[in-house]
Amino acid sequence: MPSAISVVTLLTDFGERDYFVASMKGVMLGINTQARVVDISHTITPHAIDEAAFLLNACYHYFPDGTVHVVVVDPGVGSSRRGLLVTTSRYFFVAPDNGVLTSVIEHEHAVEVRQIENRQLCLDAEGATFDGRDVFAPSAAWLTRGHPPGAYGRLVSDYHRLRIPKPEIRDGALHGRVVYIDHFGNLITNITPADLAAWQTWKAEQAGSRAGGRQDMTLTIGGATIDSLKTHYAQGSPDKPDALINSIGYLEVFMKETHAAHALRVATGAAVVLQ
Amino acid sequence: MPSAISVVTLLTDFGERDYFVASMKGVMLGINTQARVVDISHTITPHAIDEAAFLLNACYHYFPDGTVHVVVVDPGVGSSRRGLLVTTSRYFFVAPDNGVLTSVIEHEHAVEVRQIENRQLCLDAEGATFDGRDVFAPSAAWLTRGHPPGAYGRLVSDYHRLRIPKPEIRDGALHGRVVYIDHFGNLITNITPADLAAWQTWKAEQAGSRAGGRQDMTLTIGGATIDSLKTHYAQGSPDKPDALINSIGYLEVFMKETHAAHALRVATGAAVVLQ
Amino acid sequence: MPSAISVVTLLTDFGERDYFVASMKGVMLGINTQARVVDISHTITPHAIDEAAFLLNACYHYFPDGTVHVVVVDPGVGSSRRGLLVTTSRYFFVAPDNGVLTSVIEHEHAVEVRQIENRQLCLDAEGATFDGRDVFAPSAAWLTRGHPPGAYGRLVSDYHRLRIPKPEIRDGALHGRVVYIDHFGNLITNITPADLAAWQTWKAEQAGSRAGGRQDMTLTIGGATIDSLKTHYAQGSPDKPDALINSIGYLEVFMKETHAAHALRVATGAAVVLQ
Repeated sequence: MPSAISVVTLLTDFGERDYFVASMKGVMLGINTQARVVDISHTITPHAIDEAAFLLNACYHYFPDGTVHVVVVDPGVGSSRRGLLVTTSRYFFVAPDNGVLTSVIEHEHAVEVRQIENRQLCLDAEGATFDGRDVFAPSAAWLTRGHPPGAYGRLVSDYHRLRIPKPEIRDGALHGRVVYIDHFGNLITNITPADLAAWQTWKAEQAGSRAGGRQDMTLTIGGATIDSLKTHYAQGSPDKPDALINSIGYLEVFMKETHAAHALRVATGAAVVLQ
Repeated sequence: MPSAISVVTLLTDFGERDYFVASMKGVMLGINTQARVVDISHTITPHAIDEAAFLLNACYHYFPDGTVHVVVVDPGVGSSRRGLLVTTSRYFFVAPDNGVLTSVIEHEHAVEVRQIENRQLCLDAEGATFDGRDVFAPSAAWLTRGHPPGAYGRLVSDYHRLRIPKPEIRDGALHGRVVYIDHFGNLITNITPADLAAWQTWKAEQAGSRAGGRQDMTLTIGGATIDSLKTHYAQGSPDKPDALINSIGYLEVFMKETHAAHALRVATGAAVVLQ
Repeated sequence: MPSAISVVTLLTDFGERDYFVASMKGVMLGINTQARVVDISHTITPHAIDEAAFLLNACYHYFPDGTVHVVVVDPGVGSSRRGLLVTTSRYFFVAPDNGVLTSVIEHEHAVEVRQIENRQLCLDAEGATFDGRDVFAPSAAWLTRGHPPGAYGRLVSDYHRLRIPKPEIRDGALHGRVVYIDHFGNLITNITPADLAAWQTWKAEQAGSRAGGRQDMTLTIGGATIDSLKTHYAQGSPDKPDALINSIGYLEVFMKETHAAHALRVATGAAVVLQ
């Protein structure tokens, strides 16, 4: 576990117009005036836990060791769902126990998961509708002041896990999905270079017993087909979709300086098939 | 009056796309490179002074003592409307004299209201269309460097007051209004638990002279009815409206993980009646 | 060239929802935990280099000396387009070589333009689709730690220049264009007070040889006409367009507390003619 630094990131579905995010920042500055809060995003789809998890995973590891990452997408606020403090070899994570930290817990090192039960580290506020302000913000801020994780509550192992869909090989094809559409309209899939390599190996084995190896591919998405990978966006075309491995290591379908999701009428969850 | 710290909050109707907010931050950092600016909101409805006042009141008191709160919703910029510096026992407020600080002035302690007339604390800029950059930002930044409020200008008492609509008991019912719709589509009313209690007491007195006390209620909004209060959102239903006392102490109508304002076709100003 | 301070501004077309901006901030804080990043804008039209240039020019000079300004609107990422580090008497600028710094280079003092070629100052990342994170963010952060510009790469003079349309006098009239529409719907033109003065002088000379001087003007935009300049917005009318010289020194067409672009159905690029 690292020593906490004064950097706190904030990822919520609170939007940027209301008093929610500012209240959290006020509470944190009240506990540690040196806290440096960095907004990851506040404009994800309301209540979309998987979207928050995707964004968190795309960028948390670029922050310095000791950063406290706070995620508040919390449709269950006020119910029996717990707050969690997760410590890893590099970071602290504070979030509701709704699965948003599943990938962090699965992939990080020296992971410890605690439930936040020490009310002395929370705001003394009435009501049960805004744990972002009353529980998660003060919990994070006390971490930046060096409060030990052990003081927050007991270790738990029965935390909620999010089911993250993985690509699969079926009928000779690699089947993935669009998991995120970014600001530019690019379609980010759940297919990684490792998935592509595993599928190529599988194909080579099948072909070896039949006809001979082939390295080509045809990607199908929303009625369009793509038959090779580019390395950067300027290689693409504004009139037809192309694909590349993007900056966070996923296969991404794009159209050059064009909103591919609108042009192809494709939404999150759409099937992506490689043959 | 507290000592100013280096924390400045910013609440404007400038949007997040243009050069307005960045210019203000640049000016403040030019005066105090240690200034720490926290955005409250920049995406309220343009020129909506009441909306800015609502947001300010919802969160300013979560910030540490000595914070300088700057509000710039300023349709009268360049006209004879003055700039104000309001000091309280805990905070500094800098804003145009258009009523946006009415509630702060009415409810805070040790309030002093000054007009900003010392041009030496302002930017030496031509034009009369951007006092956010030329007057309010530098005024706030000089406060964070310890400039005394008395140096800004004379005390005034003829400042503009905003008329804030209060709920009222009429024909046996409690009549309130929707005053704000948040990012989730929740309908925040101007009815507080104190209003509810006063109305229950009134009803009990009326009933005592007639038939006997009853504690139940029926809330009507936009054609829908609600007959009890929840304590948190997860208790609600996605198909029908419910109500609770929200995190800032107001009666709020919501639908579970659904945009109530869209579903009920209710806008700010809509009547909320309890019977 | 100034000494770099820890203030970095960020102007991109990345939007505020995704992981792009947060990744850049994480990288910068990893190199310098004291870096203070100020967002200028992330919501300009995707790929709109001229829009980014306009916003940068509207506010960069309000920041303190030594600020590092980072602009990432970068449709050519991954292609042969270079990254540039521009130093001036007051600031540092880091951006792709696509013309976005044209006006800075033309108007600032002691300008030196270098291409960023030292990969040791960049992130060791695979892929060629996100130089904001991998090149520009680390380059900027190392500047705030005092890294000398000379270490980034050689001086260049063949950088890309953006063609910035200037108003012109034609057929006795001054012809300009709408170059930006702000959050309030105000129409900012490329006409400055200097352009107006030059045109008045030209008219006086013409008239002197014909009929006699006249100081009046008629501005035509989108079918509407305006015949005098106001000094501030409250002088205008919600029903008809007016014009003033705005806070950044351009002729601006507005309607009082009304979205002029919507009301007049005028878009960026529209002609503005003074007669």
